[in-house]
Amino acid sequence: MDVLAEQKSESDIAGVMTALGTRAGDAAGVLANVSPDVKTQALKAMAAAIRARQGDILKANEKDMAAARKKDRPEAFLDRLKLTEERIESMAAGLEAIAGLDDPVGDIIASWERPNGLVIERVRTPLGVIGIIYESRPNVTADAGGLCLKSGNAVILRGGSESQHSAHAIHACLAEGLNAAKLPEAAIQLVPTTDRAAVGEMLKGLNGNIDVIVPRGGRSLVERVQKDARVPVFAHLEGICHVYVHEAADLKMAAEIAVNAKMRRTGICGAAETLLVDAACADTHLKPLVAALLDADCEVRGDSETQAADPRVTPAIEDDWGAEYLDAVISVKVVNGVDAAIAHIARFGSAHTDAIITGDQHAADAFLGKVNSAIVLHNASTQFADGGEFGMGAEIGIATGKMHARGPVGVEQLTSFKYVVRGHGQTRPD
Amino acid sequence: MDVLAEQKSESDIAGVMTALGTRAGDAAGVLANVSPDVKTQALKAMAAAIRARQGDILKANEKDMAAARKKDRPEAFLDRLKLTEERIESMAAGLEAIAGLDDPVGDIIASWERPNGLVIERVRTPLGVIGIIYESRPNVTADAGGLCLKSGNAVILRGGSESQHSAHAIHACLAEGLNAAKLPEAAIQLVPTTDRAAVGEMLKGLNGNIDVIVPRGGRSLVERVQKDARVPVFAHLEGICHVYVHEAADLKMAAEIAVNAKMRRTGICGAAETLLVDAACADTHLKPLVAALLDADCEVRGDSETQAADPRVTPAIEDDWGAEYLDAVISVKVVNGVDAAIAHIARFGSAHTDAIITGDQHAADAFLGKVNSAIVLHNASTQFADGGEFGMGAEIGIATGKMHARGPVGVEQLTSFKYVVRGHGQTRPD
Repeated sequence: MDVLAEQKSESDIAGVMTALGTRAGDAAGVLANVSPDVKTQALKAMAAAIRARQGDILKANEKDMAAARKKDRPEAFLDRLKLTEERIESMAAGLEAIAGLDDPVGDIIASWERPNGLVIERVRTPLGVIGIIYESRPNVTADAGGLCLKSGNAVILRGGSESQHSAHAIHACLAEGLNAAKLPEAAIQLVPTTDRAAVGEMLKGLNGNIDVIVPRGGRSLVERVQKDARVPVFAHLEGICHVYVHEAADLKMAAEIAVNAKMRRTGICGAAETLLVDAACADTHLKPLVAALLDADCEVRGDSETQAADPRVTPAIEDDWGAEYLDAVISVKVVNGVDAAIAHIARFGSAHTDAIITGDQHAADAFLGKVNSAIVLHNASTQFADGGEFGMGAEIGIATGKMHARGPVGVEQLTSFKYVVRGHGQTRPD
Repeated sequence: MDVLAEQKSESDIAGVMTALGTRAGDAAGVLANVSPDVKTQALKAMAAAIRARQGDILKANEKDMAAARKKDRPEAFLDRLKLTEERIESMAAGLEAIAGLDDPVGDIIASWERPNGLVIERVRTPLGVIGIIYESRPNVTADAGGLCLKSGNAVILRGGSESQHSAHAIHACLAEGLNAAKLPEAAIQLVPTTDRAAVGEMLKGLNGNIDVIVPRGGRSLVERVQKDARVPVFAHLEGICHVYVHEAADLKMAAEIAVNAKMRRTGICGAAETLLVDAACADTHLKPLVAALLDADCEVRGDSETQAADPRVTPAIEDDWGAEYLDAVISVKVVNGVDAAIAHIARFGSAHTDAIITGDQHAADAFLGKVNSAIVLHNASTQFADGGEFGMGAEIGIATGKMHARGPVGVEQLTSFKYVVRGHGQTRPD
C-alpha cells in the first residue's frame, strides 16, 4: 500500500485534522502523568526499532530520492533528503541520548512559604500538544518525536511531501516504541495527507488542540508560519549574526573566532554574516582579519576601508548588511566604537546571536548588556548557538521571540508550569 | 483645554499610533539599561506627585463621574470609576510598594560552565513595550505604569473613554515622576484618542513595537483582544474556579474554605463558582456545606442530590456548570471520587484556580498533579489567587495561557531573558 493519501477536498482535510487534534489532546492528558521510566522505555524501544527496521527505512528513502531526482532537485536538497546506514544509526543514537536526559516534568522550579503558612511551588508541566511543520530532512521525524515525548507533550508531525515515505517508515518505528511502553499511539502522529491545506488547519490550532507550532525549514516556511499562525510559534526567521572586533581584541583570537564563526558551517543559523572591526584597531587588525577570511576561501564584501585593506575584497552594497548568506560570503565594516557596533546590530541584526572580541571587560559588559539578542557572546564563536553546545542535550530549534522559549529550544523549553499551593485550611482575610 | 482629542480619520489614528509605538520602542531601549536606583527614584516621585495633585485628580474624576451619571451607568460601574482621597492615597502607596520590590532586570536566573570553559548565564531582560488596554478603573493607570517601569518596560496605556479625564490627571503625575528621574516621558504613554480604532492598531502591534498586550477588564474586552491580537496576550478569559471536598475532608475546614472561596469577594476572578462534594462523604458533608453557603446569603443551585439536602437549593441546569457568576451564587454537584472531580474540572473549568479539601495526601497529590490549571490548591481558599498573596508584591493580572506568564503576572513575569556566554577564545570544533 502506498502511504500517499488520496486527494481529499478541503472539508475532508479539516475533518481529518480536527480528529487528529482531538486524539492528540487526549494523548497529551495521558502523557502529562506518565512516569519518567515509561518514557525512557519508549524512547529506547524506538531506537531499537529504528535499528531493526533499517532496511525498510532505506527502501522508503530510496523511493523519495528517486522521485526527487526525477524532479531534478539540486544536490543540496538531495543531500538533506538522503538517509544512509550512518544517518539512521545517528537517529537511533539521538533517541537514546534524549532517553538519557533529565526528565523536566514535575521539576520544582521554585518554592517558597508565605507568612500565613501557605507553601507555594512552581512546578514544570508539559505544554500539551506541539505541532511540528518541517521540510525535507527525514531525521526531524525522530528528533522532534523524541524531544516532545521526553517533555511529556503529544506531537503532530507534518513533514514535507518529498520526504513522506522516509517519514512514514521512521514514524512506524516511533509507534512501535510507544506500543512497547503501552503509551497511546496518538502521542506521536504523522499527518496522513500531503495536502497543503493540512498546514493551514494546524496553524489555526485544531480547535485549541495545538499549544505551540515549531517550524523547521527555510525562510519561506518560517515566514508563512509566523504570519498565519493563530497559536504561539517557537522559531527564528533569520540568523544574521555579527562578530565585533573591539580595539582591545587579541588579533590571533579575533581571526580564529571570525573564521570559525563564518566558515565552520556556513549553512547554519549561528554562522556569522557580518564582521564589524573597530576603527581604533583597523590599522593593525583589519588587513589580517580580512586575509584570514579570504585565505579560508570566504568571499569578502566590504565598505570602502575594507576594500582598501585588500584588493580581493568586493564592494558591499546596502543590502549586504541585512543579508543572511548561509554561504561562504561575509560582509565587513569598520565601526567607530562599541556603541556604533551595538547600533549597527540593532539596525541590521535578527536578535539571534552576536559576539564581541575584546580584552576589555568594560566594553564586553556594555556589549553583552545592550545587544538585545537571544544569545550574546564574549570571546567565543557564534557557532556555539546550539542546544547541544549549551548542554541541553538536544534542541528542536532556536527561537528569537521574547516570550517563553528563547535561544536553543530543548526539553525544558518545551514545558510550561503551574503553581501548586499547599495549605492547612487557610482562608483569605478581607 | 479639554483632554478629549478631536475626532480623527482612521488613517490619522494609524499615524498617531505608529508614532506612539516608535517613541515607545525608543524609550524601551533606554529603560532596559537604566539602573534600579533611577527607576526607584522615578516611582517615588510619581507617588509624591499623586499626593501633591490629589485635588486635580479628584476634579478630573468628578468630570468623568458626572458624564457617567448622565449616561445612567449602573452603581457598580460608578463605584469602579469613582476616586476618593483614600483611593488616591492607595495608588500612591501602591507605587511606593512597587518601588520597594526587587528589581528583576539583570537577575541571573541560571548559570553553568561547559566542559570547554564557556560560562553560560541566563539573564533577565525587559520584554520591551507592553500595551495595556483597560476599562473604567482609573487606578490601573498608576498600577500598570509602575509595574511596567519597574520591570524596565515602556508601556502604552489605553484607558476606557469614560475614565479619560481621571487617567490623564494620573498620567500627568507619572510623567512628573519620569521627569524627576530624567527618564524619557515616552516610557509611559497614554493613548491621546478615545477612538476605538486605536485599540485595533495596538492589537496589530504597531509595526513590531508592542511585545505583549495585557487587557484589564470584562469578558468582552478580553475576548476581543484574544481574538484579534497579533502579538502575545497575558490574560484570562474567565475564572471558573472549583472547590472539591474529598471524602477525607475535615468538615469544618471545608465549610470555612467553601464560604471564603465563594463569598469573600464574589466579583474577583479567583472566586469559586462550583462546589464539588464527593459522594463518599455526601451523607455527612453535603447538608452542612450547603447550609453554610446559604446562611452566608449565597444562592445555591444544585444537582438532584444537593436539592434533596436542603429545600432552599434551586435546580442547576447544564449551563450552571460552566457559568462564571461573579456574584453570590454557586453551583453544587456530587461527584464520585477524585477522578470524577478532575474530569468535571477539565470539562467545565477555565484553567484558572482550583482547590481540593482533604486530609488524604494521596488524593491531594492526584488532584494537584492532574488538574491542569495555572493554580491548584490543597486545603486553602481559591481567593488566594493573587500576586500580592503569592508574595509577588503586585500583579498586573492573572494569566491562564501556557506560555511565558501563567498565574499572577508580577514584575518578574513582565521580563524575558537572554543568554550571556563568556569565553576566552573558544571556537567550535567540527
